Amino acid sequence: MADVIRSTVPLALATVPGGITAARGFKAGSVHSGIKTAAAALDLTVLATEVPASAAGLFTTNLAKAAPVRVSQQHLDRSSGRARAVVINSGCANACTGDQGFAHARQMATETAVALGCRPEEVLVASTGVIGVALPIDRVVSGIRQAVSTMTQNGGPDAARAIMTTDLFPKEHAVTVQTARGSFVVGGMAKGAGMIEPNMATMLGVLTTDAQVSPTTLRRALQTSARDTFNAITVDGECSTNDSLFVVASGASGVAVDDETYPALLEGLLAVSRELAIAIVRGGEGATKLVAVTVSGARTSDEARQVARTIANSPLVKTAVHGADPNWGRIVAAAGRSGVNFDIDALTVHVGGTLMFENGLPHDDAAPIAAQHLRGQAIQIDVNLGSGDGASATIWTCDLSAEYIRINGEYRT
Amino acid sequence: MADVIRSTVPLALATVPGGITAARGFKAGSVHSGIKTAAAALDLTVLATEVPASAAGLFTTNLAKAAPVRVSQQHLDRSSGRARAVVINSGCANACTGDQGFAHARQMATETAVALGCRPEEVLVASTGVIGVALPIDRVVSGIRQAVSTMTQNGGPDAARAIMTTDLFPKEHAVTVQTARGSFVVGGMAKGAGMIEPNMATMLGVLTTDAQVSPTTLRRALQTSARDTFNAITVDGECSTNDSLFVVASGASGVAVDDETYPALLEGLLAVSRELAIAIVRGGEGATKLVAVTVSGARTSDEARQVARTIANSPLVKTAVHGADPNWGRIVAAAGRSGVNFDIDALTVHVGGTLMFENGLPHDDAAPIAAQHLRGQAIQIDVNLGSGDGASATIWTCDLSAEYIRINGEYRT
Repeated sequence: MADVIRSTVPLALATVPGGITAARGFKAGSVHSGIKTAAAALDLTVLATEVPASAAGLFTTNLAKAAPVRVSQQHLDRSSGRARAVVINSGCANACTGDQGFAHARQMATETAVALGCRPEEVLVASTGVIGVALPIDRVVSGIRQAVSTMTQNGGPDAARAIMTTDLFPKEHAVTVQTARGSFVVGGMAKGAGMIEPNMATMLGVLTTDAQVSPTTLRRALQTSARDTFNAITVDGECSTNDSLFVVASGASGVAVDDETYPALLEGLLAVSRELAIAIVRGGEGATKLVAVTVSGARTSDEARQVARTIANSPLVKTAVHGADPNWGRIVAAAGRSGVNFDIDALTVHVGGTLMFENGLPHDDAAPIAAQHLRGQAIQIDVNLGSGDGASATIWTCDLSAEYIRINGEYRT
Repeated sequence: MADVIRSTVPLALATVPGGITAARGFKAGSVHSGIKTAAAALDLTVLATEVPASAAGLFTTNLAKAAPVRVSQQHLDRSSGRARAVVINSGCANACTGDQGFAHARQMATETAVALGCRPEEVLVASTGVIGVALPIDRVVSGIRQAVSTMTQNGGPDAARAIMTTDLFPKEHAVTVQTARGSFVVGGMAKGAGMIEPNMATMLGVLTTDAQVSPTTLRRALQTSARDTFNAITVDGECSTNDSLFVVASGASGVAVDDETYPALLEGLLAVSRELAIAIVRGGEGATKLVAVTVSGARTSDEARQVARTIANSPLVKTAVHGADPNWGRIVAAAGRSGVNFDIDALTVHVGGTLMFENGLPHDDAAPIAAQHLRGQAIQIDVNLGSGDGASATIWTCDLSAEYIRINGEYRT
C-alpha cells in the first residue's frame, strides 16, 4: 500500500450534505446544556455509531495537554482503536483544571457510555473554550443524557454548530467516494482558530466514514491525510492545550478498505480534511486573506514543509500580504532563516505567478502586477529552492491584521 | 579563564559619554553622502583606530547574507582579526544586489583603506536600509573620503546617528571599567529594529574598547557577551540579511587583558551590550512595553533560553501583554510547545512577581494585581520549569501592537 496518492483510475468524489452524519451508521444529538451563557446556544454534542466502530486520533503535542485529550488517548489505547461515540462540549476547555478536570473528562465518557450502553473506553472526549475553569459537570451530565436521547441521522449540521466557540461560521463537509467495490462516504466537521476566552485558539476535528477499515489502517490514513491538511495550516504558530482530531469508521457501507481501495479512503479523507482545514484558516482571527505558501525544489518534503512553515509564520510576510506589498525581501529572508540549507542564488520567488526574485536579484519592475494579485483574497506564494529532486509542500495561512491584535489584546480582567 | 562572571572583587563600572569614541585611540567621522534623500541626514560613518587594532565580528545566520556581511567575514579571516576601520552606510542595505553589490562592498573597504593608508582587509563594512537596490557608489566613495578627512575623537554621537534608518532614537553607551591594573573604556553604538524600506529590521552594533586584547580573546568575549544581550532580544523572531556586530580593541589604555582582567572586559562588554540591546527592543516597531521573560529551573541554560524565546516570540503572549491581560494560559501553552521537556505540574508562572500558575492550576484571583503590573512599561514574566539544577536565561522582547501591523503592512508599491 502506498501512502502517495497515485491512483490509475481517477477517483470520483462528489460533495454531499450532512457533515459528520452523511456517512451511514452515525447519529448525532446536540443540546444547549448551559455551559455557554447565551440562551439556546448549542454547547454539547454526542456523535455515536450503531455498532462498535474503528477509531483513531491525533492530539496536540503541547506538554500542557487538557484532561479530555489525556482521557481520549487512554481510551483509544485501552479499546485498541474501537469506539462507539465522541462527546464534545464547547464553552469550557477543561484544561489546567487538575485532578478534578481529569475526573470530569472521565465522567463525560462514563455518562455517554451509560446512555448508549457501551464501555467508557469506547467513548472519546473533547472540550474547547475557556481554560483554567472547572466544567459545570451537573449541566454537562444532564446535557449528555438529553443529547443521546435526541440523536438523529440528520444531526451533523447541529453538531458542527455545537462545537463552535467564537468561530465565525460552522465548518463541515462530506463527499461520496466511488470505487470499483462500491461507494462510501467521508464526512467531517471542525472548529478553528476563533478566539476562546481567555483566548486559546483550539483546533478540533471529527471525521467519519462508513468504509470498513481496521483501526491500524484508519490510523495510518489519518496521519497521512492530516499531514498535508490539518497539520499544514497555521494562523499564528501557536499550538493549544486541546487540539484533537478524531476519525471514526462505522463500516456501514459494506465497502472494505484493502490495498486496492486504500487510495480511495485516503482521497476521501484528504478532500474533507483539506476543505475543513482551509475553512479554519479563512476563519482565522482577523484574517482577510487566505495564503498558500508552496515550496518546491527541496531535497525532501520535510525540508519543503519547514521552509513553507517559516514563511507562513513570518510576521513580516503576513503583514506585507495584509498590506498587498509584494515584498520578496521578507520571503527570501524568512526562507534564509528557516534552518534548511539551500543556495540563495538558485532560489526563485513568485507571488501570484509573477516572478519577483531569481539569481540573487529582485524583479521589482513586476511589483505592480504582484501587488494586484495581493489585493485579492486568495494569495499564492511560490518558492523554489532549486535543489534536490524537487520535493514540495504547501502550508496555508492567513494575513496578520490589526484586527488580530484587537481580538487578542483586549482586556480579559 | 572562566566565561562565567564570578569576580571576587566587585567591578567598578561608571557610565561615560562619547559612545564609540569614548575609548582612547578611536576617531569617527560622519557625513551626509546623499544615499538618504532627506537633506543633511547623516548616512555614512567611518570609525578608525590610530594603530592596527584587534577585531571580531558576529553575523546574521540567514542564508541570504548581504554583500557587506560576506566581505567583512572575509576580511576578518584574511587579517586574522586585525582591523583599522569600520565603514557603515545607512539608507541602502546592499543586499540581494548580486555581483555588483559584492564589488561595491569591496570598494567601500578599499576606498576607506586608501584614505587611511591601510590594507583593505583591515576594513570592516556594514550597510543597512533598503534591500535589492544598488548603492549609489560614487556618492558613497565621495562620502568615505569626506568622512575620513573629518574624523575626530568626539565623533561617536554623530556616528550613532549616521547608522539610523527609521530608528526612533540613536543608541549609544559607554562605561569605564576599573581593574587592579588600571582602567579602560568600553563603548558602543547600535541600530535596531526600526522599519527599513522595504521593511527589513536590521541589527547593527559596533563595540570599541581601549583594553589590550588579542583577537582570539576578543572574539570569545564578544560571543559570550552577545549571548545574553544582542542574542537575547527579539522583536518578531525575524533575522535579517545584514545583522552584524563588531568589536574593535585599540589597546590605547595600556591595560592588558589576561586571566585576571578578562572578567572585567566581559563585564564591560556586557554592560554596554545590554544597554544597547534593550534600547533596540524599546525602539522595536510599534513597541509600547519592554518585556523580560526569565525562565529558571531548567536542566540547561540552552533549554531555559529556548523556552524563554518561544514565550517571547508568541504572538498570543505579546498581544496579551499589549492588552495588559495576565494571561497565564498563553504563557503555559507557549512553554508547553517550546520543544523542551518538563513536568507541567512542576511549572510556576509569575507576572510582575505575582504567582499566576502552579501545580497545574491557575491563580486567577491574583489577576487584578498582575494586570496592574502589565499596565506599566517594564514587564517581567518569570517561568520556573521546576526541573534540573535550576539553569536560567532571560530574553527581552516587546509587546505586539496594531502599530506594528500598520508600520509593516503599509503599501510599498
